[in-house]
Amino acid sequence: MSGADSHVVHGAGFEWPAVALREYKNDGSPHRDITRRTLLGEAPGEQALDALVRYFEIKAGGYSTLERHQHPHAVVILRGRGQVILGERVESVAAFDCVYVAPQCFHQFLATAGEELGFLCVVSRERDRPLLPTPAELARLRAVPAVARLLRV
Amino acid sequence: MSGADSHVVHGAGFEWPAVALREYKNDGSPHRDITRRTLLGEAPGEQALDALVRYFEIKAGGYSTLERHQHPHAVVILRGRGQVILGERVESVAAFDCVYVAPQCFHQFLATAGEELGFLCVVSRERDRPLLPTPAELARLRAVPAVARLLRV
Repeated sequence: MSGADSHVVHGAGFEWPAVALREYKNDGSPHRDITRRTLLGEAPGEQALDALVRYFEIKAGGYSTLERHQHPHAVVILRGRGQVILGERVESVAAFDCVYVAPQCFHQFLATAGEELGFLCVVSRERDRPLLPTPAELARLRAVPAVARLLRV
Repeated sequence: MSGADSHVVHGAGFEWPAVALREYKNDGSPHRDITRRTLLGEAPGEQALDALVRYFEIKAGGYSTLERHQHPHAVVILRGRGQVILGERVESVAAFDCVYVAPQCFHQFLATAGEELGFLCVVSRERDRPLLPTPAELARLRAVPAVARLLRV
């Protein structure tokens, strides 16, 4: 019944001093003005968690990579407003909205509202690598006017 | 690449109209003024998620059940302030703090600060049932003055 392994990671105002502020990705994929922090699940003492809780923040005008993968995303918007591309659809999102990104659904989060967009994204520790769209897939997405207007790649 | 199965669950101000507001537990365990919502992972279209994202809210003076289980918790405080018992320790928590509750650690969240305490709690879909403390375990926890002062059972 020991609490030795349990702990609190303190935060305030979308800052967590003990959590590393990371580059979003460094694989050359298209993205802009987005950062990543793993709030829970990454530290050595947290390996019992099957899920990782990450906090992403996109500055006004920025966007995440357009990608798909087999693992789903559970997203909770915590800060600001923006839009998300979910396959052939575009949805506006704001703080408190939750987003379910289904397996293999192309998705991209965009801070299009002149303010930042911050969100928690929960994923399984064991997961497949994201795939970028092929030229054919990109052409199909671009055939949808609402998506084409927004898409950054 | 279809977005047919992806979706947004809209929320605002700690309310999510499309999400059922649930009784915290109905198993007779000790708790007070606490509600539960499963924001993501419960709907039929969200079964690909291995994790459930729940939002719990405790009114001022309320508390969750003191319990332990093998599955860990990943908690992100979203609203208000309070305290959490983590085994033999007591920690103050406020919005933005994250809490890792380790396997088999007795834990109880308490809205002791005269305001509500609202938090996300991520768990695996497949998980063991919580256990209440035995009289011997309760006596051991009560032997810790900081815990004894706070404990509600």
